[in-house]
Amino acid sequence: MEYTALLHIPETEYAFLDSEDTITIRFRSKVNDLQSVELVSGDPYLINENNITESLNRMTKIYSTSLFDFWEIKVIANHRRIAYAFLVNGIDGEQIFYCDRGIYTFEKKYYKNINFYFKLPYFHLVDMYRAPEWVENTVWYQIFPDRFHNGNTSNDPEGVLPWNHKNSPSYHDYYGGDLQGIIDKLDYIRDLGFTGIYLTPIFKANTNHKYDSENYLEIDPDFGDEDTLRKLVDEAHKRNIKIMLDGVFNHIGYHSRQWQDVLINQEKSDFKNWFHIHKFPVSSYNHLTLDEIASTKTFEYDTFAFAANMPKLNTTNNEVQKFILDILEYWTVNFGIDAWRFDVANEVDHQFWKKVHHRLTGLNPEIYILGEAWHSARKWLSGDEFHAVMNYPLTDPIKLLLFENELDTFGFRDHVINQFMTYKDPVNRVQFNLLDSHDTERILNAAEGNKDLVKAALFLMYSLGGTPCIYYGTEVGLSGSHDPDNRKCMPWDEKEQDLDMFEFIKRINTFRLDYSELINYSKMHFTSKNKTILEFYKQNEQTNLKFTFNLSKEVMNFDLNNQKIVLLNQCDITEEKAFLEPMGFIVTEQKLIKEDKVEIIQ
Amino acid sequence: MEYTALLHIPETEYAFLDSEDTITIRFRSKVNDLQSVELVSGDPYLINENNITESLNRMTKIYSTSLFDFWEIKVIANHRRIAYAFLVNGIDGEQIFYCDRGIYTFEKKYYKNINFYFKLPYFHLVDMYRAPEWVENTVWYQIFPDRFHNGNTSNDPEGVLPWNHKNSPSYHDYYGGDLQGIIDKLDYIRDLGFTGIYLTPIFKANTNHKYDSENYLEIDPDFGDEDTLRKLVDEAHKRNIKIMLDGVFNHIGYHSRQWQDVLINQEKSDFKNWFHIHKFPVSSYNHLTLDEIASTKTFEYDTFAFAANMPKLNTTNNEVQKFILDILEYWTVNFGIDAWRFDVANEVDHQFWKKVHHRLTGLNPEIYILGEAWHSARKWLSGDEFHAVMNYPLTDPIKLLLFENELDTFGFRDHVINQFMTYKDPVNRVQFNLLDSHDTERILNAAEGNKDLVKAALFLMYSLGGTPCIYYGTEVGLSGSHDPDNRKCMPWDEKEQDLDMFEFIKRINTFRLDYSELINYSKMHFTSKNKTILEFYKQNEQTNLKFTFNLSKEVMNFDLNNQKIVLLNQCDITEEKAFLEPMGFIVTEQKLIKEDKVEIIQ
Repeated sequence: MEYTALLHIPETEYAFLDSEDTITIRFRSKVNDLQSVELVSGDPYLINENNITESLNRMTKIYSTSLFDFWEIKVIANHRRIAYAFLVNGIDGEQIFYCDRGIYTFEKKYYKNINFYFKLPYFHLVDMYRAPEWVENTVWYQIFPDRFHNGNTSNDPEGVLPWNHKNSPSYHDYYGGDLQGIIDKLDYIRDLGFTGIYLTPIFKANTNHKYDSENYLEIDPDFGDEDTLRKLVDEAHKRNIKIMLDGVFNHIGYHSRQWQDVLINQEKSDFKNWFHIHKFPVSSYNHLTLDEIASTKTFEYDTFAFAANMPKLNTTNNEVQKFILDILEYWTVNFGIDAWRFDVANEVDHQFWKKVHHRLTGLNPEIYILGEAWHSARKWLSGDEFHAVMNYPLTDPIKLLLFENELDTFGFRDHVINQFMTYKDPVNRVQFNLLDSHDTERILNAAEGNKDLVKAALFLMYSLGGTPCIYYGTEVGLSGSHDPDNRKCMPWDEKEQDLDMFEFIKRINTFRLDYSELINYSKMHFTSKNKTILEFYKQNEQTNLKFTFNLSKEVMNFDLNNQKIVLLNQCDITEEKAFLEPMGFIVTEQKLIKEDKVEIIQ
Repeated sequence: MEYTALLHIPETEYAFLDSEDTITIRFRSKVNDLQSVELVSGDPYLINENNITESLNRMTKIYSTSLFDFWEIKVIANHRRIAYAFLVNGIDGEQIFYCDRGIYTFEKKYYKNINFYFKLPYFHLVDMYRAPEWVENTVWYQIFPDRFHNGNTSNDPEGVLPWNHKNSPSYHDYYGGDLQGIIDKLDYIRDLGFTGIYLTPIFKANTNHKYDSENYLEIDPDFGDEDTLRKLVDEAHKRNIKIMLDGVFNHIGYHSRQWQDVLINQEKSDFKNWFHIHKFPVSSYNHLTLDEIASTKTFEYDTFAFAANMPKLNTTNNEVQKFILDILEYWTVNFGIDAWRFDVANEVDHQFWKKVHHRLTGLNPEIYILGEAWHSARKWLSGDEFHAVMNYPLTDPIKLLLFENELDTFGFRDHVINQFMTYKDPVNRVQFNLLDSHDTERILNAAEGNKDLVKAALFLMYSLGGTPCIYYGTEVGLSGSHDPDNRKCMPWDEKEQDLDMFEFIKRINTFRLDYSELINYSKMHFTSKNKTILEFYKQNEQTNLKFTFNLSKEVMNFDLNNQKIVLLNQCDITEEKAFLEPMGFIVTEQKLIKEDKVEIIQ
């Protein structure tokens, strides 16, 4: 047995509460190394007294990658506390006891020593990770307001350019999109089937993207005013659409009164402790161009990246904390905001996010808190900071599989499973999945214009679970390379729109909302037998959904076997068969009666 | 290369801050599987631009167990943020890139993709684990007040028994020990070399152990009053001795007014939400004997273990939180308490401990917070809950090695190293190490009366680092089996004391205070070549300390090589040699000049 591969870490994604008396426990081993794993468990205050062998429970092998097998079990503890260990049976016949004190060749005496066990000493709901239920049933639409729709020309910024989706915008262009424009298009968004809108920042700032906040308590006049926002939220809610705002609190803008005060009053400024200033006097870098600023690597103060115009806020300062918490309360309470996305959230301290979580969930227990972190982010997702992060690590494998040939089906499986196993199940169900955003090239460009690849990628993302997001314009075939080209104006003339893609997005949104529970609450059973046909299924008691993607260069025959076709692309069908073109895919559904439940493949 | 053994987890003991700009990074691999590990690191916003190969840094193999090699490096990050990954060189010549997105056969292209890297996105001191410095230089003396010394017979409890260290006490005996008794013996404690006293509970309760608190705001009249406590703290401080109190907040006593109110008023009680009550009416179990209570496994409310007379407090309730926090503030501020040990701390929710940490460190940044947890406790030790836990997992291997022959020197090494690698270094330096307590049999009994074994065990504990604690009476040879036999009266007549053990404890306390920094800040370099001679050394720039324990049945020859003898037991010496009897040990010191620094054995 490969001892060094065995892994369990208490109080992490390897042992998490599902409810007041139920815990999910995971275990990891080298692939194909074990016959079985049994959970040895009991009440911590009874284990010495009872014969523990009565509470041996076989764990289920839920996932296998090329390196690891992952095992899982759910256990109920009547007294809301548990002591547990693992009885590990190797394929070589070896039997070991894996516990909090190490690895031992199995002997019954180990059962009796309570100090050897892992523990969840008491099940506290207050320590349990919990996300609002609505999120897992939400499909998001991300809007970059300046480029979505100009609903009110009276608030156009100075020097506004004529709306044109063919223009490749430059960094400093303004096109006049605004909140009224979004209100005007809410029916469009609802009809597409989206149930959430993620807005990039809307507070007063000095750029078109508004990530350099000047005043967090004022809607940027280019976008409208408080009445427009209130109307937007109310009208969205009437259409069952949630609104998520983007809060940029890692740093503030150069033009904010706080930073200006520092530049003017220097060490005498009331705001000098609002920032991370290492030396006075602090210079103003406003006379420099962006390029010059970017090449200046040493400032007297900490900044976002090397952006001198974005001084980093000191979120350990009580005044800064109160300032931000009050801002969050203001918009959340007075405008009915449903969710916050926090920009560069990984660079702000954990202690502050705990306060944000406490305040926001206190104001609205149904609020969704999303942090920007591109890397694995366990610590931020333990339950008292964010509900989710921007899940680039899950969606990257989709691009590597479909667009870049860097992964085959098995490599794809490995990445996806590792990602699932990095977090607790309830985290995975609300992770914010996206293929592109204002921070990346557009998915159509990543796919080098191949629309069938875009469809396959989007649909695959929808099938993996989490809460998916589509970047405005994807539904009409908008293209765009990296920033700022990824921020083109939305084409509103139907003649300029890709109506086929539009219908496809509509269809997958419907699909996702119809099958949301099945997709989020069942494991991905990977069944690919070769490197170019991606096959997996998801099933619950009633339904089996079978997903097949033909990534080969040949047409693939698929036996329908009387299954219902749920959705397909690039696929011809006869009564008995489907013929998947290269990059074609199909999803079929089989209603289950107990007898014909598909055997889970391990 | 054994991929499945490779491990790094960001934002854990595998990557922790040492200071504002320095981070310690660890990596794990299968033993003897790698030639080297190089840290690939840089500023997250520069990695795309620069040639990363300039920032390759070779990691040091700091520990090896029979399963794993552990690698470590400290890195400075000028902009207080870091992106990092590992370039892993197998002994088989294979080279892989281990990063946040998985394991890749090494190619230079991986260097360039910032999204592949692990990150500590910004170094926040507020998120850093920090313990007060005095703790690592402290040697503790644990006192069970009823049995230590009766300094004031006027406050003796009813039915007090005559002082007698030969009596095996029963569960309900009172012997009249009190706080004045401790004050009277402070010189004794100081002269022994102890610099901290850990008192089991002293607040009003209805047992001799007082773990069933009735009133947390009153000193138990059996022990004295507020004036006595104040005098105890002041007199201790005059002697440079710290005072740690024991706070029992997981549960409260049956006789507390809060629980009595519930029993009387039931659902109408103002305190009904102070507990975890599942059903009304709540029964009183006071008419039952302890044995009857212990056999009753179902109550209408949650309890400590199955003790009906210890109803569990609901620490998520705001009133309970305020109640406890105010109690902690009262004693800490008004009496100058230096440290708190929290009983059954693992069964109280994390959210509450964060509040306790915040309040206590706010009142006194130098306070030490110790939680009772007998298992691995990473989550409680991340920096915002406890500074340390009762470190039974580290000291168990000492008993298994010396008393029970369950571990040989190599097994001992494995357990100790695994324990070190479970926590960050600054945690290890203040972990509360103990061989026995009021909760276990006494060390003399564990050693079956063999005093040389006791000496070896105590000295080994002192040598491993952390902050060691000795249970009252060990220094005079007090014996005792499990509770309540481990709570005998202290013998104060010198004729009844083991004066040899007394001198030994004095000597190791001096040793520990003299060498505290070397012991706590250097790694344990294990050099045993066989299963029965335990050898390791610790060294810094100036000094090498060599520890040798003869666990064999033969006399062992030891070449002194002009090294200074620091401490020994069961050991004859000539000018050139030491002869270690079975269970003998010796520590020698060598002053280092740069040239003869002992080579670190890997």
